Amino acid sequence: MEKLNFDTIILGGGPAGLAAAIYAGRGAVTVAIVDLNMFGGQPSNYMELENYPGFPIVGGYDLMEKFEEHADKFGVQKFPMQEIQNIDLKSKKITTKDYEFTAKTIIIATGAQPMKLGVNGEKEFVGRGVSYCAVCDGAFYKNKTVAVVGGGNSAVEEAMYLTKFADKVYLIHRRNELRADKIIQERAFKNEKIEFVWDSVVKEIKGDNLVNTAVIENVKTKQTSNLLVDGVFPYIGITPNVEHISGQLEQDASGFIVTDSTMATSIDGVFAVGDVRKTPLRQVITAASDGAVGAVYAVKYIETHKEAVLSDVTL
Amino acid sequence: MEKLNFDTIILGGGPAGLAAAIYAGRGAVTVAIVDLNMFGGQPSNYMELENYPGFPIVGGYDLMEKFEEHADKFGVQKFPMQEIQNIDLKSKKITTKDYEFTAKTIIIATGAQPMKLGVNGEKEFVGRGVSYCAVCDGAFYKNKTVAVVGGGNSAVEEAMYLTKFADKVYLIHRRNELRADKIIQERAFKNEKIEFVWDSVVKEIKGDNLVNTAVIENVKTKQTSNLLVDGVFPYIGITPNVEHISGQLEQDASGFIVTDSTMATSIDGVFAVGDVRKTPLRQVITAASDGAVGAVYAVKYIETHKEAVLSDVTL
Repeated sequence: MEKLNFDTIILGGGPAGLAAAIYAGRGAVTVAIVDLNMFGGQPSNYMELENYPGFPIVGGYDLMEKFEEHADKFGVQKFPMQEIQNIDLKSKKITTKDYEFTAKTIIIATGAQPMKLGVNGEKEFVGRGVSYCAVCDGAFYKNKTVAVVGGGNSAVEEAMYLTKFADKVYLIHRRNELRADKIIQERAFKNEKIEFVWDSVVKEIKGDNLVNTAVIENVKTKQTSNLLVDGVFPYIGITPNVEHISGQLEQDASGFIVTDSTMATSIDGVFAVGDVRKTPLRQVITAASDGAVGAVYAVKYIETHKEAVLSDVTL
Repeated sequence: MEKLNFDTIILGGGPAGLAAAIYAGRGAVTVAIVDLNMFGGQPSNYMELENYPGFPIVGGYDLMEKFEEHADKFGVQKFPMQEIQNIDLKSKKITTKDYEFTAKTIIIATGAQPMKLGVNGEKEFVGRGVSYCAVCDGAFYKNKTVAVVGGGNSAVEEAMYLTKFADKVYLIHRRNELRADKIIQERAFKNEKIEFVWDSVVKEIKGDNLVNTAVIENVKTKQTSNLLVDGVFPYIGITPNVEHISGQLEQDASGFIVTDSTMATSIDGVFAVGDVRKTPLRQVITAASDGAVGAVYAVKYIETHKEAVLSDVTL
């Protein structure tokens, strides 16, 4: 097992991690990015993005490739496809199948993922009618019919958001009442574009090139039926990618990492950026900004702890 | 005077304002951007940016043009070159020489500006040797000689940051001791690349195409001398652009607008984004992210206050 030491190790090569790499690399510290998969993170799976400022329209994969090239420019060392065995944040040691990494600072940029329905067609149609982000993709559904799945605040809010674009929005919920706050419910009930499909779950998503049907089942009668829709937005929750990390630092009730405005976590020298942290919006632009902030403060951290480390050695 | 009403009015057409316009426009609300000048804000004056993720290198003007085109795509109405007469945040009314704007929400994106030395050559050489941002431009000064002007924390910190790149950094300060925190001072004094130039002020910045000389005067002896430098970084302070705004909402001691993580200010329906707010980092990427967040929450605000407004009218 090869041992490697860096000033900064970034966990995760999505937009937050790559932006952190750009800023840390440019800050003249040594930087490694480690990812379980290839770099690019979630956006790599998006056919089109039209809300990363500066790129009126761009493929998600293409944009992430530009981020990666940008990081390359500053000599960032890349470790994709790593099988993580252990992460010890306090001692800043990360063990993968092939390497033992140590660092002065760690930037956690492991992202989050929407909870999946787990039905046939869901994975196949991501970016072609299945979306987990109304703010990202709503504008693509002008005058169309879509279904939102879920009954919490975000499901109901996103359903209302989608009525700005879509002619009709089905809200499919497994119970016969919503979990969302009363005030949000009331507004949704008044919205004539929303049709509630109670006691129902999605069993399958079908289509040709694009989604055209959600097969739903009434959980009480067990009857199935076809809902003709152009899009399906599952909003049944989002969960941070915190395997090997959870429990070592302050997290909120859903597991998202709590930071201050400089992206510092509850552990000295450990920063969290992008979707994995508790944040009011999860977009490529916000993730990239977090990455920049976290990296600048990681570089400052290294700078201010240089002497401390040296004097420890001297003593 | 023409009267115009919008769902959202954005004050300022720099990266924060344009990103807010992109997100608000895409959120299907009516949006106007109002600026004192042409759009583009501060970055328009930067020759080159190499830290906006996705653009390894880009002219500041070019990048801001892309932002503006991006906003155009969503039908944002633009009002550049406006002479502001009054801004009333509470009633959400903005009066310019030609228009009376009213809105449901206001997004303040007026930016901030570094305090200027006010000497000959300073303005002419911006982007060609004069820079107000070490994080932005430090990397361009590899193996060069630069001067930082100032004696506070940021001047000293940025001088240390610049030693990562430059061979030599003069720190020019008008007194014979620093204002910076003791711990920061001590680190700076130990840094062999930094040479302190006490009791001195910059009288003029000279060069050909690029800066090559800072003319300095010793304030005690009144003697002038030439310092041969490739760059001058004035760090004598930064001040928010809050004319017509100051005093109406919560600001910090330096006048920067205080927001929560959704960019909401102390006034309902008024958001502040980018350099004008109290924030740990001022970059194009952070401004653009702020704009996105502020716009998404402004759209949510409009959505949740729709009924309230309607019922007010009904009563």
